[in-house]
Amino acid sequence: PQLRHFPSNVGCGCVPRPHGKSFAHRSELKQAKRIVVKLGSAVVTRDECGLALGRLASIVEQVAVLQNQGREMMIVTSGAVAFGKQRLRHEILLSQSVRQALHSGQNQLKDMFQSWRQEHAQLLDRAYMFDCSRQIKHCHTLHELLRMNIVPIINTNDAVVPPPVPNSDLQGVNVISIKDNDSLAARLAVEMKADLLIALSDVEGLYDSPPGTDDAKLIDIFYPGDQQSITYGTKSRVGLGGMEAKVKAALWALQGGTSVVIANGTHPKVTGHVITDIVEGKKVGTFFSEVKPAGPTVEQQTEMARHAGRTLASLLPEQRGEIICCLAELLTEKKEEILSANKRDMELAIPMINRLSLSTAKLNSLAIGLRQLAVSSRDSVGRVLRRTRVANNLELEQITVPIGVLLVIFESRPDCLPQVSALAIASGNALLLKGGKEAANTNKILHQLTQEALSIHGVADAIQLVSTREEVEDLCRLDKLIDLIIPRGSSKLVRDIQRAAKGIPVLGHSEGVCHVYVDSEASIDKAIDVDSKCDYPAACNAMETLLIHRDLLRTPIFDQIIDMLRTEHVKIHAGPRFASYLTFSPSEVKSLRTEYGDLECCIEVVDSMQDAVDHIHKYGSSHTDVIVTENEETAEQFLQQVDSACVFWNSSSRFADGYRFGLGAEVGISTARIHARGPVGLEGLLTTKWVLRGEGHTVSDFSEQGSMKYLHENIPVPQGSFS
Amino acid sequence: PQLRHFPSNVGCGCVPRPHGKSFAHRSELKQAKRIVVKLGSAVVTRDECGLALGRLASIVEQVAVLQNQGREMMIVTSGAVAFGKQRLRHEILLSQSVRQALHSGQNQLKDMFQSWRQEHAQLLDRAYMFDCSRQIKHCHTLHELLRMNIVPIINTNDAVVPPPVPNSDLQGVNVISIKDNDSLAARLAVEMKADLLIALSDVEGLYDSPPGTDDAKLIDIFYPGDQQSITYGTKSRVGLGGMEAKVKAALWALQGGTSVVIANGTHPKVTGHVITDIVEGKKVGTFFSEVKPAGPTVEQQTEMARHAGRTLASLLPEQRGEIICCLAELLTEKKEEILSANKRDMELAIPMINRLSLSTAKLNSLAIGLRQLAVSSRDSVGRVLRRTRVANNLELEQITVPIGVLLVIFESRPDCLPQVSALAIASGNALLLKGGKEAANTNKILHQLTQEALSIHGVADAIQLVSTREEVEDLCRLDKLIDLIIPRGSSKLVRDIQRAAKGIPVLGHSEGVCHVYVDSEASIDKAIDVDSKCDYPAACNAMETLLIHRDLLRTPIFDQIIDMLRTEHVKIHAGPRFASYLTFSPSEVKSLRTEYGDLECCIEVVDSMQDAVDHIHKYGSSHTDVIVTENEETAEQFLQQVDSACVFWNSSSRFADGYRFGLGAEVGISTARIHARGPVGLEGLLTTKWVLRGEGHTVSDFSEQGSMKYLHENIPVPQGSFS
Repeated sequence: PQLRHFPSNVGCGCVPRPHGKSFAHRSELKQAKRIVVKLGSAVVTRDECGLALGRLASIVEQVAVLQNQGREMMIVTSGAVAFGKQRLRHEILLSQSVRQALHSGQNQLKDMFQSWRQEHAQLLDRAYMFDCSRQIKHCHTLHELLRMNIVPIINTNDAVVPPPVPNSDLQGVNVISIKDNDSLAARLAVEMKADLLIALSDVEGLYDSPPGTDDAKLIDIFYPGDQQSITYGTKSRVGLGGMEAKVKAALWALQGGTSVVIANGTHPKVTGHVITDIVEGKKVGTFFSEVKPAGPTVEQQTEMARHAGRTLASLLPEQRGEIICCLAELLTEKKEEILSANKRDMELAIPMINRLSLSTAKLNSLAIGLRQLAVSSRDSVGRVLRRTRVANNLELEQITVPIGVLLVIFESRPDCLPQVSALAIASGNALLLKGGKEAANTNKILHQLTQEALSIHGVADAIQLVSTREEVEDLCRLDKLIDLIIPRGSSKLVRDIQRAAKGIPVLGHSEGVCHVYVDSEASIDKAIDVDSKCDYPAACNAMETLLIHRDLLRTPIFDQIIDMLRTEHVKIHAGPRFASYLTFSPSEVKSLRTEYGDLECCIEVVDSMQDAVDHIHKYGSSHTDVIVTENEETAEQFLQQVDSACVFWNSSSRFADGYRFGLGAEVGISTARIHARGPVGLEGLLTTKWVLRGEGHTVSDFSEQGSMKYLHENIPVPQGSFS
Repeated sequence: PQLRHFPSNVGCGCVPRPHGKSFAHRSELKQAKRIVVKLGSAVVTRDECGLALGRLASIVEQVAVLQNQGREMMIVTSGAVAFGKQRLRHEILLSQSVRQALHSGQNQLKDMFQSWRQEHAQLLDRAYMFDCSRQIKHCHTLHELLRMNIVPIINTNDAVVPPPVPNSDLQGVNVISIKDNDSLAARLAVEMKADLLIALSDVEGLYDSPPGTDDAKLIDIFYPGDQQSITYGTKSRVGLGGMEAKVKAALWALQGGTSVVIANGTHPKVTGHVITDIVEGKKVGTFFSEVKPAGPTVEQQTEMARHAGRTLASLLPEQRGEIICCLAELLTEKKEEILSANKRDMELAIPMINRLSLSTAKLNSLAIGLRQLAVSSRDSVGRVLRRTRVANNLELEQITVPIGVLLVIFESRPDCLPQVSALAIASGNALLLKGGKEAANTNKILHQLTQEALSIHGVADAIQLVSTREEVEDLCRLDKLIDLIIPRGSSKLVRDIQRAAKGIPVLGHSEGVCHVYVDSEASIDKAIDVDSKCDYPAACNAMETLLIHRDLLRTPIFDQIIDMLRTEHVKIHAGPRFASYLTFSPSEVKSLRTEYGDLECCIEVVDSMQDAVDHIHKYGSSHTDVIVTENEETAEQFLQQVDSACVFWNSSSRFADGYRFGLGAEVGISTARIHARGPVGLEGLLTTKWVLRGEGHTVSDFSEQGSMKYLHENIPVPQGSFS
């Protein structure tokens, strides 16, 4: 049978494809046109938590969403277990009026279905599949149903069918006997030339060891050749098929050209989007692929990075400095190669040309920055922060150590790569870099040079470039592998990552609503507000709200401020109080918390310095706030009271920056309140560890009956001291 | 009508209660016996995301769960909008076989319902409610249905019913005209003497200002007297009733003795448990209560704490020291009162007597610790960590500041309260304390004394004791109010809080799988392993796994270790390699990651120091790990390589403790990798802020065309220097 016509409002980009070749990567699953969803008995059976109806309904919804995208969907369900026990059916009926169900005739039902695209379900017995004549007939029927845009539901009905007889080959591929749902689904998928089989049960997917054992890891992508490397655990709680049967069926389908994903369809928090997530290419369950990619997986990359990172941390500070200097040299030495890779990226990405672009001048200044960092890195890892004599011959040290494995996610700017790499090297951290697709060529060559530099001390693997195929959201879930995520990019990127990163700390700032407060005693010749707003309006440290002391209204200084902003074409929005003072006011602000990120700002009037502080605490984002005044006492009170990462007196908010602060490079600016705050350089990439050296000391020696007493003598630590 | 018999397997503890008095607190909602769930039209209408079926199904499931607990459930739904458009009905039918729906006769349906407790739904028209004779009949019918354990579904059917006529009073309570679902649901709830009305729509609940405006806050508990303090926004997207109508209906129901919660029933992430959460007393939507509690809400407490905390932070270090010393004095001065409160707690809580108990000796040693802390607190807030001359007359300082508002959650031990309070005072942080119910009396008096001490400098509000009624999970959601959560208690408490705290950092350790590695060159006379395991086996810094170098097997030192552990009655589990060396081995470990927390430990054999390090990295929790060896080189390699918060040489793991480290008090031990690590004292409660002082400097002064150059001169900072 051929694939027939499809509705014109197809939006998923899926197209009929030549069969016989499964997808190589999860990201290609978006293209799947024909999809079989298999529901294991655990999915359709009510569990202790009282779930099943909600679960099934949301599965049906997801199938409907995918069908509305123009895909052909089929459902295989272990009806015998669930329907047979008359639970599923009952639960679904529960939510409608019985009277209605009884009184609706065929016509009324038909009417009801008019508004929906996918029509209704068809029940088959597994028995039909064994009868050759019937089989052909059903294959035809299924194609007809799909052509009519109907979602067929194939019920395996285990309980009523006699035990299967070993079955002869069907497609000349391989023999699979239909013992259970899994083999039925696999067979149906191949027979129907489906692109994808999604098998949902109550297990997360395939583990390399029985789940629950110490070393068990969920396999993200399973390649047929790897079959011997896994150990099967006990069988699934409900249903006929254990994991081994599932894998066998999956491999059979794969060989027949259908991609397979095995995933959990019973997890309350993910069931509502498990199917659509899989089709979107997210890392859910285990994906079966015939094509083993050349490089390591991101998990393997992380392991390699952590391992090499530990060696990096144990090098001498001079050696880390050498690596950074070597990278600096490579940046200028190999500039032709870098610029040619950058040119290729630029040709593909016209709209974002500025941020993407590298130049000889940029590379030179990058190299200078790196050499400065190499010098300051001498005083990082292994620095003794505190030394205490706990008791005689029992000495405690607190020393700086790297955090571990960092994940830095950055957009367009490829110059970020060597900078962040140098910071990671200086601080002895392993690093995963995830750059934007638009800079793929430039990032690749820059990463190669970084690895070349690292290799002079045998730690090339400490910095890994993550494939552009990897989804940011998936990376944010690697909570046992990554210690800190640093997003560098738009507020939206940061917010998305903060939301996605469950259990991994994120260092960054999602908003920069910075204020400049012009006090009644401000000097007229300080154009701090204009610099704060106009130097680079898109930056997070640009001013968004100008607070003006009431006494300045209708004075020359006020007129001058407004004139200067107008000269720079800054669009002004009035805060409610400011608007109330004016006869003809500019448009009133929608929110006093707006980050304009453009030549726009809000002006609001305050009664006093204290009033300004209160406004900042209420509407600010604790990033950077400025006071302009000649009164030192007022200034010091403002600096003490304002609870932001950066508080400035008579200086532009734009100084909030690692380079301008003299930190060398920066990985970003943090508005978090723990760990690093404000511009984050080398220090923010370090943590500490406590080292205690004794001679067999036990705590019981210090008990009331014991022989020892705590001394707790502070031993002075010379600055820059190393352990 | 009377409440009739109910199934005997009722598990929720809900009992029929005299009507006319609504519940005073959310926590009492657990007792609700008869519940009306009202589904607004936005809930039953399909939205852009393709949701509705899953949502409705999960709502039906929750109703079923609650009914299975023995509650009487009723559903009021705006059927006209959804059913009338034949969407809802269609979507529900979609997931079953049409053939089956058509062919099932009454008997078969009846059979299907046998396995379920709640039976089926009944449809009424709103019109029925206006006909007095019908009304009585229906009230009777509804009671009959409830008696039969059936969930009635009342359909308001707006579209087919003529506009309502103002209705006369029914119960002698008040007049409400039935204009919409809200008033119908309110009236039905009162008429049926329901305990609780849950009104679900597409708004989160009631806000004090129109949602979306700058200051809009969701009202947790609304008291009728507060009605004038709110401003209503625009109407709900779908449906007749705006928020004002909803509030009016809710107040009417409340006056009739039915508690009301208004919540969002369309939010994909919470819909699956919104109804059960409300009944469990969680902070979802807005709860209408007639009884205004005496004290402030927890949100108000947090605001008060933050405000007073800012004053606390601006005090002189000596003043903070005075507060701590005052608290120390009060602990000994008021010991009679404290011990008598403690006695009352002890009388109620026999099983946990040890951790709860205070004594004169304990109070004295608490006071001593506090006085030590008062001394060391001199050098905390406002310390200059770094000073840089950025340019002429542009000076940057990095100074220490408090983190902000801390939430410390602690179990039984009331001695935690003055310790943690003193640490918060010393570091200038505001503090919310949430203690266990079992120590309520002791915590109350200790908190009063803390506030008494704080009041000597006018900052009594900086430390707040949260009511024992507040759920920990609800507190963990106050992400805009609280900056850091510190759980002190069992691993389970910590893990639960880490899971619940969305967006708020948690400082703590969920596990302490500590190792002692006995090297081949270990000295026989060091009983570090025994002290590590036996000094206090329940502590997180107790040894869980003893790693023994292979060469020690069958040597006197090995026999001695085993003998010592046996003498102390330590139950030994064998690691897989250890077991393979023995003819008769102890039981093999289930997991090498086990935290026994008791007189039990695992013994495993390793080939070398390097092998031990690998084992620790693989199975440890990065808490505290120890090497026992006489070889300094081996020890230093171990200390360098092991990536844990605490690494010890020839010392017991039990030294991993703030007091033993000489930090004074500790708020806990952190196994996080950022911010504080290991035992956390004063330093861990501080963050930094950057202060820049200029003379009108702008960033453009430093551009290529500008007049200024960055100097970035490091200005030496004397230790203990204050800004």
